[in-house]
Amino acid sequence: MVKKTQGVEPLAIGIDIGGTNTKFGIVDEVGNILFSNDMSTRVHKDVNSFIDELYNNLHPFIEQAGGIGRIKGIGVGAPNGNYYTGTIEYAPNLPWKGIIPLGKLIEDKFKIPAIITNDANAAALGEMMYGAAQGMKDFIMITLGTGVGSGIVANGHLIYGHDGFAGELGHTIIIPDGRLHEGTGKKGSLESYASATGVRLTALEFLEKSPKPSLLRALPQDSIDSKAVHDAAMEGDELAKEIFEYTGKILGIALANFVMFSSPEAIILFGGLTKAGDMILKPTRESMENTLIQVFQNKVRILVSHLKSADAAILGASALVW
Amino acid sequence: MVKKTQGVEPLAIGIDIGGTNTKFGIVDEVGNILFSNDMSTRVHKDVNSFIDELYNNLHPFIEQAGGIGRIKGIGVGAPNGNYYTGTIEYAPNLPWKGIIPLGKLIEDKFKIPAIITNDANAAALGEMMYGAAQGMKDFIMITLGTGVGSGIVANGHLIYGHDGFAGELGHTIIIPDGRLHEGTGKKGSLESYASATGVRLTALEFLEKSPKPSLLRALPQDSIDSKAVHDAAMEGDELAKEIFEYTGKILGIALANFVMFSSPEAIILFGGLTKAGDMILKPTRESMENTLIQVFQNKVRILVSHLKSADAAILGASALVW
Repeated sequence: MVKKTQGVEPLAIGIDIGGTNTKFGIVDEVGNILFSNDMSTRVHKDVNSFIDELYNNLHPFIEQAGGIGRIKGIGVGAPNGNYYTGTIEYAPNLPWKGIIPLGKLIEDKFKIPAIITNDANAAALGEMMYGAAQGMKDFIMITLGTGVGSGIVANGHLIYGHDGFAGELGHTIIIPDGRLHEGTGKKGSLESYASATGVRLTALEFLEKSPKPSLLRALPQDSIDSKAVHDAAMEGDELAKEIFEYTGKILGIALANFVMFSSPEAIILFGGLTKAGDMILKPTRESMENTLIQVFQNKVRILVSHLKSADAAILGASALVW
Repeated sequence: MVKKTQGVEPLAIGIDIGGTNTKFGIVDEVGNILFSNDMSTRVHKDVNSFIDELYNNLHPFIEQAGGIGRIKGIGVGAPNGNYYTGTIEYAPNLPWKGIIPLGKLIEDKFKIPAIITNDANAAALGEMMYGAAQGMKDFIMITLGTGVGSGIVANGHLIYGHDGFAGELGHTIIIPDGRLHEGTGKKGSLESYASATGVRLTALEFLEKSPKPSLLRALPQDSIDSKAVHDAAMEGDELAKEIFEYTGKILGIALANFVMFSSPEAIILFGGLTKAGDMILKPTRESMENTLIQVFQNKVRILVSHLKSADAAILGASALVW
């Protein structure tokens, strides 16, 4: 059911494509989400079947909101989404390989303009317009979900780079020859440690190498994920806490490197891993400060996004339209 | 002797402060260097004595050029130089510790406006106006000298960050818990490997650990520096070549990380280490490409600056004035 709106102000559709799920919604110009929902990304091995389901999900609500004529455009945040070309290119965490002309496919189906960007760039726009980064001109958004995404704002503008692909901080190498990333084949990237996937792998490693007792040992291996580690740590499990400390230490080194690149006012963290709160934030902050040279120390705030997860992604994507 | 100029077009002074030497010159608006010279930075433990010598060196040539009234301003590139505040703050490679109000000291002495920036930012401006980056809107300048400096241009503008200190890529950590940097106390930074200092330390390590014969073994330890390694490699010395390969491998990982941050069109390398040519560039390129995820591969040019060293620094610093 679309919430009632007054008059005929233009609306925008915001779509956030993640490796697991896709969130979508209809948003007005001041950031009210009139309707939102989600669907599985993963089940659609073919991008056309994905777009068909997306259309079928959205169509009744577009009609209810006054028809497609009232929708100014569609903003899409997607892994490896390219602002300049409207394509998704070689996204390791999506089921569609190669170069996908997502913008064109959406425009052909919905018959209105579509604008694509990196999912984390969209999140950064959402934070700048409606969230923790309001008023900031230099900040970095890091999303800690299934993967690690990033959006970088400098001088008040998103950094897209010469080809539209800037801001892939999850793939920067923090530990050369470190843990293998199954999706990229590269070793030691931030994403292979500081994502939900990374926390699960760290847990499995720690359980094998450490003699310590742990609540996690009672679980079948398939059930050991970042949520299980979180639950165990909340009950005081020492090994679970060490897993977050290790994750935070690596994340902190990465954040320090990013600070020494663009010297942001703040780093905004977003996503599932931030739910661990100080269990991960404290070692992250300590490690970042220890890694920074003096001129950067005690200056950069690490903030956790206070936007609701689904809202932030949809708002950020819709912000591309305005 | 100041070269003859026509008319009374305004001139600028460009000053490049390095850890060892300071270069300075008088430049016209189209990039002709009318006069240039250099002096030692290192001998001046007190910044005031440094500025006195700088003034005494420049003064006769300012008079010859038509007096201070003809000089529009002074641009200064210096390690940890801050564009916003005109200060040098905690520069590990300079003899002056803490926060130095360099801009104010220069203005008080010369009685004309002074603009300060990071030495590598100045070099980036020089490349953008007169060098290999002409016409580029997204590139990264890396200076490989005594230390490693960097200037980052995105969307056609230098990235200064919220506090003016962006672009300290030499201090990003490439090998956590790696080699100690004497100046910063941090371990495993790019600068501790991919600078002249780093090459010397790698050479000493390799000579100790490897059983291989090497021309370098004939030299007293104090004479083993990046030039000696270069000379030995040019004569086919295997160990010397391995030192450059190792250096290039680490530099390549770092460059890949920077590419995944701001997705530049090119990386411009500058400074002493580039004289090793393909002995360092080939492993650097290979390591960069191997580290990049697919979407960035075979896109980013690694270029060597073709500006003369002294000219580039002075031109870049003077470009701050225009």
